[in-house]
Amino acid sequence: MFGFGKSKAQKGATQTQTLKIGLIGLGKIAVDQHIPSIRANKNLELVAGASPGSRPQGVVAYNTLAEMLKAHPEIEAVAVCTPPQVRLSVARQVIEAGRHVFLEKPPAATIGEAELIRDLAKAKGVSALASWHSRYAPAVEATRKWMGERPIKSVHIVWKENVRQWHPGQTWIFEAGGMGVFDPGINSLSILTRIVRDTVIVKSADLHFPSNCQAPIQVEMNMQTDNGLAIRADYDFLQTGVQTWSIFVESESGEKLVLSMGGTELEIDGKTIIKEKEAEYSGLYAHFYDLVKSGTSDVDLSPLRVVADAFMVGKRIEAPAYIE
Amino acid sequence: MFGFGKSKAQKGATQTQTLKIGLIGLGKIAVDQHIPSIRANKNLELVAGASPGSRPQGVVAYNTLAEMLKAHPEIEAVAVCTPPQVRLSVARQVIEAGRHVFLEKPPAATIGEAELIRDLAKAKGVSALASWHSRYAPAVEATRKWMGERPIKSVHIVWKENVRQWHPGQTWIFEAGGMGVFDPGINSLSILTRIVRDTVIVKSADLHFPSNCQAPIQVEMNMQTDNGLAIRADYDFLQTGVQTWSIFVESESGEKLVLSMGGTELEIDGKTIIKEKEAEYSGLYAHFYDLVKSGTSDVDLSPLRVVADAFMVGKRIEAPAYIE
Repeated sequence: MFGFGKSKAQKGATQTQTLKIGLIGLGKIAVDQHIPSIRANKNLELVAGASPGSRPQGVVAYNTLAEMLKAHPEIEAVAVCTPPQVRLSVARQVIEAGRHVFLEKPPAATIGEAELIRDLAKAKGVSALASWHSRYAPAVEATRKWMGERPIKSVHIVWKENVRQWHPGQTWIFEAGGMGVFDPGINSLSILTRIVRDTVIVKSADLHFPSNCQAPIQVEMNMQTDNGLAIRADYDFLQTGVQTWSIFVESESGEKLVLSMGGTELEIDGKTIIKEKEAEYSGLYAHFYDLVKSGTSDVDLSPLRVVADAFMVGKRIEAPAYIE
Repeated sequence: MFGFGKSKAQKGATQTQTLKIGLIGLGKIAVDQHIPSIRANKNLELVAGASPGSRPQGVVAYNTLAEMLKAHPEIEAVAVCTPPQVRLSVARQVIEAGRHVFLEKPPAATIGEAELIRDLAKAKGVSALASWHSRYAPAVEATRKWMGERPIKSVHIVWKENVRQWHPGQTWIFEAGGMGVFDPGINSLSILTRIVRDTVIVKSADLHFPSNCQAPIQVEMNMQTDNGLAIRADYDFLQTGVQTWSIFVESESGEKLVLSMGGTELEIDGKTIIKEKEAEYSGLYAHFYDLVKSGTSDVDLSPLRVVADAFMVGKRIEAPAYIE
C-alpha cells in the first residue's frame, strides 16, 4: 500500500502532507457535508468533483470520474457520493485507478457488492472506508461507554423524519435497492451496532411498502442479542411536525439514557450530559485521513447486514401509494 | 477443541472411534436423508432423536433436545434439522452443551444468526458445519474443474419443482423467513458459489409473492461476477410435469456444459460425462466427521448472503394466492 508522496497518482505533483481528494456525485450530501468538511480539514484538499449534472459553486467539476482523474492526476483519494445502486462500478474504477476510496453509506447496494469492494481495495493496496457518519455524532462514544458499564435491559430506536423535507427529488430511494426508510434508518443501525457490543439479530420486521414503491416507507423491527437484550426499532418516513432521531436505553436497574437528535444530545435520568452541534463528517474525514496514512481499511458491514436480514425475514404490508 | 474420547459428554461412556450423533427435528429431511446416511457410515452412530411430534420407526425419540441429552450423555454431536426459524435457539443449546453441531441448510433464518452460531461454536471449541448438501452431488467438482480451465461466458440456473409434491405440509416455507422458492433455490446457489470462483453479485431480482404468503413462489434473478460473467436464475415452485434442477454453462468459445438433476448428471456438448445416483448426505456426513476429527469448522454463508441480497434489492410482484 502506498502512502503520501509515494502515490503514482502524485507523479509530478508537489509533494505535501495534504491528502488530495476528488468527489464523485455532487448531490445534496456532497454539498451539505463533504465539501465543507474537506475544506475545514487542514490535512485535506478538495481538488475537483464529477457529476453528470450538478455544478456546485466553487468546485471544479467534470462530467465523469475518468475526466476528473485525467485532468487532475494528483488526486489521491475519491469520495463516492453517488446513489448506492451505482456505487460498485464507481468504486471499482476508483480502486483500479489506484486511488483510496471513501464510500458514503450504505457502502453498496448489496452485501456481496460491499464485500467485493473490500476485497478489490485489499488486492490493489489502497485504503477503503465504508463510512457510517452517525457513528461520529458527539454523544455516541459516551453512550457506548455507559452501556458497557452496566447490564442493559432494552434499547428502543425511534427514527421518524419527513422524506419530502430531507430527500427532495431523490426518487432512487423508493426504487428496488434504494432501501426506502432504511436509508435514514441505517444511520440508527450504525449507531446501534457501535453502542451494543454483541451481535444484533433481527427477529421480525413489519415492512410497509407503498403500493407504487419497491422500498418500505415505515418499518417496525424486533431485534435482540444473544445475551437477551431486547431491541426495537420504529422507522417512519412520513413524520410531519417534530422530527425524531432518538435511541432510548434502559438499564436492568431502571436507569434511563436518551441519545437524541441523531446522536448529538445525551440525557441520563432526565439530566442533559451532552448537547453539541452536529459535526459527524469532520470526524469521519479525520478517520479516513488516518486510515490512508496508516495504510489500513475500515469496512464494517454490520448495519447493512441488519437491513438485508430485515428484508429477508420481514413481513410485507401494503401501504398507500407515495407521491412526492 | 476436544476430539474423540476427550469430550465431557463422553464421560463414563465406552470410548470408541465412532462419532455418536443425536438428531433434533425428525421431519421429512431427517427421515429421508440423515437417518439412512448416518446408519450407512461406519464412523457414525445414530444414538437418538428429538422432536415434539414425529416418531420415525426404529429411532429412540424424545420430546426435547434437553431430554435426549440427559438420557444419552454419550451423544457428541447433534444434527439440527428443524425449520430455519428456530435453528439459532436449538444450535445455541447444542453448543452450550458442548456438542458439535451439524446445521441443515440454510444454517439459520438470517445472516446475523448464522454468524452468531459460528462465533458461539468457535468460543466453545466445538465444530460447526453449515451444510450445503447440493455441493456434494457427484458432478459438482467436475463442473468446477471444467469451468476453471476456460473463460466462461454465461451461467443459467433453472430450478423448477412442485412445492405440493416435495414440501407437503411444510407451511413454514411460505411464512416470513421461510424463504419460499429460495428454500430449494439456495441449493442451486450453494452449487453456484462452489463452481464459480469469484464473488457472486446480485444485480436484480423479480420476487413473486402470493397474495397470502410472506415468501416468494417464483423468482427471476440476474447476477454477475466482477469478471463480467453473466449469471441468471429462474426459480419456480409451481412446476408440474417434468421437474428441473439444472445449471447451463456456456464457455466463451461456445462449449456447452449441463449440470442436471441437482448435480448428479453432467453433459458436455451433448455427451454424457457423469450420471450417478444422488448420494449427497453420505459425502456431507463424511465431511462433518473430518471436521470434528480435525477440530475445525466450515461455516460458508455465501449462498445465504445471495438470498438476503436478492430480498434487499428485489422487486416485489404480487402473484395469485397459494393454497396447498
